[in-house]
Amino acid sequence: MNKESKVVLANLEYLRKLFIMPDSPDKFVEFGHELLEMLHDFFKEKGGIHSSISLPELSHIFSTTAVPDEPNLIKNVLSEIKGKIIAHSVKVGNPYYIGHMTSAIPYFMILLEMIIAALNQNQVKIETAKASSFVERELVAWFHRLIFDRSESYYQKNIQNPRVALGNVTSDGTISNITALLVARERAFPPERGFGGVWEKGFSEALKYYGYSRAVILVSTRGHYSIKKASSLLGLGEENVLSIPVDDCHRMDLTRLRRKLKALKRLTGKERTKVLAVVGIAGTTETGNIDPLDQIGELAEEAGSYYHVDACWGGSALLVDEYRPILKGIEKADSVSIDAHKLLYCPMSMGLVVFKNEKDLNLIKQTSQYIIRRNSVDMGRFTIEGSRPFSSLKPWASLKIIGREGYRLLFKSAQANALSLKKILDDRGNFESLNSPELFILIYRFVPQPVREQLHTWQEEKRILRNKAKITRLDRNIKKVNQIVNALNIKLHKALRQDDTTFVSRTTLESTRYHPLNIVVLRAVLINPLTDEAILQEIVETQNRIGTGLWRGFESAYKKVLAGGT
Amino acid sequence: MNKESKVVLANLEYLRKLFIMPDSPDKFVEFGHELLEMLHDFFKEKGGIHSSISLPELSHIFSTTAVPDEPNLIKNVLSEIKGKIIAHSVKVGNPYYIGHMTSAIPYFMILLEMIIAALNQNQVKIETAKASSFVERELVAWFHRLIFDRSESYYQKNIQNPRVALGNVTSDGTISNITALLVARERAFPPERGFGGVWEKGFSEALKYYGYSRAVILVSTRGHYSIKKASSLLGLGEENVLSIPVDDCHRMDLTRLRRKLKALKRLTGKERTKVLAVVGIAGTTETGNIDPLDQIGELAEEAGSYYHVDACWGGSALLVDEYRPILKGIEKADSVSIDAHKLLYCPMSMGLVVFKNEKDLNLIKQTSQYIIRRNSVDMGRFTIEGSRPFSSLKPWASLKIIGREGYRLLFKSAQANALSLKKILDDRGNFESLNSPELFILIYRFVPQPVREQLHTWQEEKRILRNKAKITRLDRNIKKVNQIVNALNIKLHKALRQDDTTFVSRTTLESTRYHPLNIVVLRAVLINPLTDEAILQEIVETQNRIGTGLWRGFESAYKKVLAGGT
Repeated sequence: MNKESKVVLANLEYLRKLFIMPDSPDKFVEFGHELLEMLHDFFKEKGGIHSSISLPELSHIFSTTAVPDEPNLIKNVLSEIKGKIIAHSVKVGNPYYIGHMTSAIPYFMILLEMIIAALNQNQVKIETAKASSFVERELVAWFHRLIFDRSESYYQKNIQNPRVALGNVTSDGTISNITALLVARERAFPPERGFGGVWEKGFSEALKYYGYSRAVILVSTRGHYSIKKASSLLGLGEENVLSIPVDDCHRMDLTRLRRKLKALKRLTGKERTKVLAVVGIAGTTETGNIDPLDQIGELAEEAGSYYHVDACWGGSALLVDEYRPILKGIEKADSVSIDAHKLLYCPMSMGLVVFKNEKDLNLIKQTSQYIIRRNSVDMGRFTIEGSRPFSSLKPWASLKIIGREGYRLLFKSAQANALSLKKILDDRGNFESLNSPELFILIYRFVPQPVREQLHTWQEEKRILRNKAKITRLDRNIKKVNQIVNALNIKLHKALRQDDTTFVSRTTLESTRYHPLNIVVLRAVLINPLTDEAILQEIVETQNRIGTGLWRGFESAYKKVLAGGT
Repeated sequence: MNKESKVVLANLEYLRKLFIMPDSPDKFVEFGHELLEMLHDFFKEKGGIHSSISLPELSHIFSTTAVPDEPNLIKNVLSEIKGKIIAHSVKVGNPYYIGHMTSAIPYFMILLEMIIAALNQNQVKIETAKASSFVERELVAWFHRLIFDRSESYYQKNIQNPRVALGNVTSDGTISNITALLVARERAFPPERGFGGVWEKGFSEALKYYGYSRAVILVSTRGHYSIKKASSLLGLGEENVLSIPVDDCHRMDLTRLRRKLKALKRLTGKERTKVLAVVGIAGTTETGNIDPLDQIGELAEEAGSYYHVDACWGGSALLVDEYRPILKGIEKADSVSIDAHKLLYCPMSMGLVVFKNEKDLNLIKQTSQYIIRRNSVDMGRFTIEGSRPFSSLKPWASLKIIGREGYRLLFKSAQANALSLKKILDDRGNFESLNSPELFILIYRFVPQPVREQLHTWQEEKRILRNKAKITRLDRNIKKVNQIVNALNIKLHKALRQDDTTFVSRTTLESTRYHPLNIVVLRAVLINPLTDEAILQEIVETQNRIGTGLWRGFESAYKKVLAGGT
């Protein structure tokens, strides 16, 4: 920076002008124009999804260890952002990027973000957020109704009733799940005559007072890691999240749940255990499959447990009547989490958590003199977070612009893409698809056709064999080949990251048709409406080509297994 | 909505186009223009800070209880937003709004929000946030250095070292404080041979294993309510936040802290108590005053306790060397929270929490197969939140555009305004100012001059009196008059809300020159650089005029006290 511009910038009059919405929008539009061109260039480039720069190179770029002293012109900083940041961002909106729950977003979202920033309301308090408090409550009521479908008069009574809260807008699904499990904890150990409740007295005293040795949370092995995080945070401890295995369709195994609940009930005396919550999943992060919500709800009720449904991924599907049957039973939940930055196509990040009982959030109600006074109408009384932006404008406006009808078309296109990818993979021969997509997620792996057929034959043989030694040998072979295929898929995923023209993600699942073996799988999330069949073909061709090439390095190991070697 | 536009909108091709950054920016700019004019109209209006619409009227406007079915044109929804939301938002950027920690923001923040939304990176994982992960780490290192000032080689080594984290970017100060106290909990009850640690085993088992009956957090009576929230959330219980009284300057009373720590140390056997954390405050929410951070740090160290500094408000003052002396000792902290949406002038909302020991966040490290794999470089391993936006771009760019030198000028102007308001109030006669602003916050109340002088006389008399009965009578008078003045100030605050041309906030403090009486005070936060002396004069004149008018309704009650009545 030269001396001249320093003089211009380090001056209060110049700084004050930055704080004024320009009198004519010209200046703003000038920057806006430049910005849009920048962004547009970035989006229209094909390939280079993650940009080819290496992580060590990026480390080098961002290694200034002290805050800049001197001011800098806006246009210089914007051009720095263009060259250093935008150029090396991940093109999550690219139709060839089908690896995570992030997709292209409608461009009007950017306009909405401009409004949110310009108004700069703080949702914690009515003195800093007037109309926006009401918008947020309206949005929460919409989702409450989609899930719990109470009467019109119920909503008329509660939608803007400041004494209760139908739910919270949060920064993301993790905070939503933590809020729900916090409410579950308060419901399990409430205040009563002679005891101040877990909120006031703490978790250890609550266990003692109510005569339990511990409290547990039950969720399937597909549960999101935020459930364990919540359990640690709330004082239960990570080990008190009990994982219930899933069936071949990645849904919680009801028999195992029933058995576990029975076993827990039998624990008495020093081992007496409180089932704090049973958590159902509406759209697992890894496979998009949906737990049997209805039956889980019944079992939770029988066990006298709180019932939370983590619908961060799939909850928005309730907007479309065709999806109601697979989500049946969600209305039995005490609380439901839904993310706006997933199937509502909002930018990062916004979560929702909705409670069946409008009085439940009163269990965690806090007040303070200076900000959320008793008897105030401030929303901050009910939330874990303090200061919060007016994020609810995004889904609120988007539901108006796109409408349920529009979301129906978007989900239909997403599901068509998921099924279409499955078909392309199955037809191609060298892939094994591993789930039936319910909510736009497909998991699969690369397995050269002869290997896939061999695995299939062995599995069939196992089913009819009675000879134990032979079964053991088959199991050994199946295991060894799967280990080879796992290594192949890890290598393939890394090579695809290098190639960088397409992107799917990768995970490891313990429960597939090969359980108890751990299987490395590729994972595609098909929600970008700009992704079409031709693009999917291209993605599969790329994977097939690279996978086939890599297989050569694994063939001899495979042949050894076939030959009965070690 | 008419049939025709329904046909146009409920169509996948139309929807797909919404997801494409327009080829030419024309369309975007057209909307942008409209938007800017909307926002500009809103900002340039004087008065009507909260808009005159009543809360019941707003309830009525936002009482649609079901999600819209049909799509709607963007321009229609934008005009709905203009009429229903923007018109009834709080003008937090207005220079006459000096009531909360929210102010005008520089307009370039809106450009930055556009970039953040368009890139839509998810900071949880490097696969969804490439350059932005490095920007975030760089920003965190800047603040680490401002606070802890380790060597250049320390920062070179750790700034982009994925095995550690110097801190987290969070959604707000509450999450920052919760993160810090969570780390304090893990440090107090770590895993060791024979015990899995509080994270895994839970809080109750941790107390048992380490032989404590409870764990407590110490903070002054000025502590933010998020500390109690964190204590409940983490399982300690709200009652285990022990409040240490403050001195006349609203700073933690060190004698009381020392005494409390000693008393806690004496508890043994069944009452043995772990001091989980001592929390110092760098800028209390109510008065902006700063605890004696250095001495608190020493006492915390002696007690073997974790030391957290809640610098959500004042931490950014470290950017300016002149403020270093009053923040002395902050470098003794184990962790420090700072909000970007406060003194960094970023829009809602972003917090930071920085840890002295770069390995501390490893205590809460989580991994999962599909998202934040072991040995990955993903930032989600270290955070309470899951999905997170690229908010760090805002302070990162703002520190470049404004620079330390620019922030120095902004803070200088803020402090000048705070002192100027104090002087105007003192000169006016009918006000009593109740703190010395250290960080741009002034508390005061309206007290007609004769009443103020009478209170003053009584206080002086009390000091020299030896006659107990007389002291009791004086105390009774002081109390009664203060009750009258409290009622007057509540009424004044409500009348100011009605008048709605200016805004200050209101709180109740237990510890002022009248302690143990609770005093209702008005609170001004002077950080808007567009607020100047003439505006402050106008604000005081308004308060004086309305206050004087209201006093008539209280005069007879006051005279009764003077006459010795009840």
